[in-house]
Amino acid sequence: MPLSQDTTHVLLATLRERLGDRHVLTEPDDIAPALVESRGLYRGTALAVVRPGSTEEVAATVRACAEAGVPIVAQGGNTGLTGGGVPYGGVVLSLARLNRVRSVDPGDAAITVEAGVILADVQAAADEAGMLFPLSYASEGSARIGGSLATNAGGTAVLAYGNARDLVLGLEVVLADGRIWNGLKALRKNNAGYDLKHLFIGSEGTLGIITAAVLKLFPKPVSRSVGFVGLPSFRTAVGLFQRMSRAADRDLTAFEVLPRFGLEIVLKHVPGAVRPLAGDHAVYALVELSSTRPDADTASELEGLLGSAIEDGLIEDATIGTSEAQNTGLWSLREHLSDVQKAEGGSIKHDVSVPLSRLADFLEQATEACEREMPGLRVCAFGHAGDGNIHFNLSQPVGMDKAAYLAEWSRFNRIVHDIVSSMGGSIAAEHGVGLIKREELALYADPVGLDLMRHLKAALDPHDLMNPGKIVALGDDAPPALPV
Amino acid sequence: MPLSQDTTHVLLATLRERLGDRHVLTEPDDIAPALVESRGLYRGTALAVVRPGSTEEVAATVRACAEAGVPIVAQGGNTGLTGGGVPYGGVVLSLARLNRVRSVDPGDAAITVEAGVILADVQAAADEAGMLFPLSYASEGSARIGGSLATNAGGTAVLAYGNARDLVLGLEVVLADGRIWNGLKALRKNNAGYDLKHLFIGSEGTLGIITAAVLKLFPKPVSRSVGFVGLPSFRTAVGLFQRMSRAADRDLTAFEVLPRFGLEIVLKHVPGAVRPLAGDHAVYALVELSSTRPDADTASELEGLLGSAIEDGLIEDATIGTSEAQNTGLWSLREHLSDVQKAEGGSIKHDVSVPLSRLADFLEQATEACEREMPGLRVCAFGHAGDGNIHFNLSQPVGMDKAAYLAEWSRFNRIVHDIVSSMGGSIAAEHGVGLIKREELALYADPVGLDLMRHLKAALDPHDLMNPGKIVALGDDAPPALPV
Repeated sequence: MPLSQDTTHVLLATLRERLGDRHVLTEPDDIAPALVESRGLYRGTALAVVRPGSTEEVAATVRACAEAGVPIVAQGGNTGLTGGGVPYGGVVLSLARLNRVRSVDPGDAAITVEAGVILADVQAAADEAGMLFPLSYASEGSARIGGSLATNAGGTAVLAYGNARDLVLGLEVVLADGRIWNGLKALRKNNAGYDLKHLFIGSEGTLGIITAAVLKLFPKPVSRSVGFVGLPSFRTAVGLFQRMSRAADRDLTAFEVLPRFGLEIVLKHVPGAVRPLAGDHAVYALVELSSTRPDADTASELEGLLGSAIEDGLIEDATIGTSEAQNTGLWSLREHLSDVQKAEGGSIKHDVSVPLSRLADFLEQATEACEREMPGLRVCAFGHAGDGNIHFNLSQPVGMDKAAYLAEWSRFNRIVHDIVSSMGGSIAAEHGVGLIKREELALYADPVGLDLMRHLKAALDPHDLMNPGKIVALGDDAPPALPV
Repeated sequence: MPLSQDTTHVLLATLRERLGDRHVLTEPDDIAPALVESRGLYRGTALAVVRPGSTEEVAATVRACAEAGVPIVAQGGNTGLTGGGVPYGGVVLSLARLNRVRSVDPGDAAITVEAGVILADVQAAADEAGMLFPLSYASEGSARIGGSLATNAGGTAVLAYGNARDLVLGLEVVLADGRIWNGLKALRKNNAGYDLKHLFIGSEGTLGIITAAVLKLFPKPVSRSVGFVGLPSFRTAVGLFQRMSRAADRDLTAFEVLPRFGLEIVLKHVPGAVRPLAGDHAVYALVELSSTRPDADTASELEGLLGSAIEDGLIEDATIGTSEAQNTGLWSLREHLSDVQKAEGGSIKHDVSVPLSRLADFLEQATEACEREMPGLRVCAFGHAGDGNIHFNLSQPVGMDKAAYLAEWSRFNRIVHDIVSSMGGSIAAEHGVGLIKREELALYADPVGLDLMRHLKAALDPHDLMNPGKIVALGDDAPPALPV
């Protein structure tokens, strides 16, 4: 819907008056970073980037935009991977100035933070209080917690601590009409009516804007051991996970996998990266045990588990870090994999999950189907195997034109997502839907469930002004879903 | 809204045709048990009790009722404690015949069950497969899992495993218009749009009817130790919990408290109950450590923790079960407390939670305020201290007329809930809202949040036919909230 110049003018004047001139940015250079996402796949437009400094100012901004009929896209660190934070007209509402840790309460094992606090700073505030905030993923140094919650972020600690959603005790949210819902309770049990917080967590700013949250804290592990394991196949990796999760249960705090191709490109592109095992293996698993028990000896525990797995012929080789520096080094092999794919050209990415019992089947079938579709394509399937969540990424054939390769995105979506769907999986496991999965969701979601999502969107945001066109498209003027 | 005889006649004929005559009960004797709740506080009315045998039959029933404009109350085991399952006109839809365990999948650590499976049977099916389904509470032998989920039940395993909500991977729900949403996914990560399951869990049948669920399973503990501790005060009990939860963390699987009065009435009314500690203590804690680690020695761990707490003067005395029979005996002292209160006359009950750091303050202030209000009244505050959740129950003064005492329910609600509310607590921690807390919710909920609940109810159930008058009252003809 085109806006009249008058409407725009009045809105910007209102916002300047309310937030101060310097927090209403309209110069092209100032707003440019807010128009793109981290992979550069989407490029949007916006009237302005506004930076409210408090929940009340967020509410005032939303009210002013609602009155003017102007859409709002909330942004935290703008580190999302689905185009969910890219604006197509309207106002970008930055949460960056809502960056206060309101309180740290070790006695309640809780921390109350504003939406703009950087994830690493939440972790640091918890750490200073002698506690752990476990949510952790690659962009934690710039991602802001409001975005982590709005996308229900996953990451590497989900196995033991759950997704972002599971770490939330309470929320404060500005609704589409500018009212503030205060649900900032630090309670472990609360059945006082519908659980509103879960409606907003994972809704990617399409139903309201999260402005603050009460998060769970945990005791800090006092013992941690990290192993790097060489395996003949993904199937044996799944077997190792099932075995370890039964034996170590709550001590098993990470189980990640990467393929030979993944390890090789990390070793190739990351200066100082060291090959962890002498031989060559089809698949690698990074496993971590940790415990808060004073008497815990996770090193012996891990040695025992991996030793018996070698004896039983389940795994080919393994190494265990003998210092925190070595542990960090092993982890960095896994963590760099997200970055180094760029150096290998175009990458068509799928963030999928399947029931654990189907994970090996999925990887075999999807790999075969993609390699058959385009010989030379290099499958880089890695990630959170313990959660059944794989980043099934496809690096382009060596020498192929990158743009020509990326133009095939839809075709590979269909191949991979058809297999995922046939196994009862999810086409959007931890990164969310945003733009890039919107039409895929429309294709694969249970039709009644999809209709219910549209109905909820229409009920909570009747004028379709909160991050319109993301997750579901209500109007005809929604932005295109696939990168253009 | 009174129904015409014609409407009723046509509806019952339709239901009989669809479900079979013997599954549409209208004889007063047949429907009587469905009109009351377990405490006998409420007594309702119904046109019929219908017993569909499949999800499709549930959907057909809901469609028929929707067409006729007849309200529906879903019932599982009818063990709820809030009047949430009591019908006031309309049709009671029993889930009892949807009692199939659809699959047990140890490889996915998941089980798929229909809503009418009795909670204890879910536990048994998991156990047979060598796994644990941890949800556990007093009525588990007759409660049905659909009701557990519709009320987001809590119980004794929340500390380690979470509330019912946290144990759900996927749901199948019949919506208010009779459509079936199939969200039966066995996934640990799924961000494919809004998380619809959390909307229905805890909504007490007011937004839709849960017909099946995929639930999480866990490894079975191989080592378990139970201790019974005597303490000078609730404050020291909270201190003991914080200390133990830091040291034992994920091994601490229960931390329950009961007052001297609670233990004494258990010993008085339960044949064969044995006093666990020689002396007399103001407060008792039941603590449990369990572990799945093959090398775990929870007995030594518990001995170490309680031993040092005695040395430090935090606790007065403690005993540790030396056999599973002893462990079960210690647990039964806590479990019988729910029942034996009846033998002491009228009980005004509050199911509340506060942040853990305020728990001792709450107990002190609320006890003093209630005892001041009615000398002779006997406070029986017990429950899930580790979750900040206390059943703050008030047994009548000895010799007082029971009805006269129960007539004071509202007055004590105000005293207790005012204190809870001032501490950021919840007036409905684990039992839900139903009827008995509806007006309390209206009084204490954040007004914007309450309005959002009403808005959701109106959006998902526009004709107010799904368990009307529970949680929130939309129309003027809602049943009365307090027992009459």
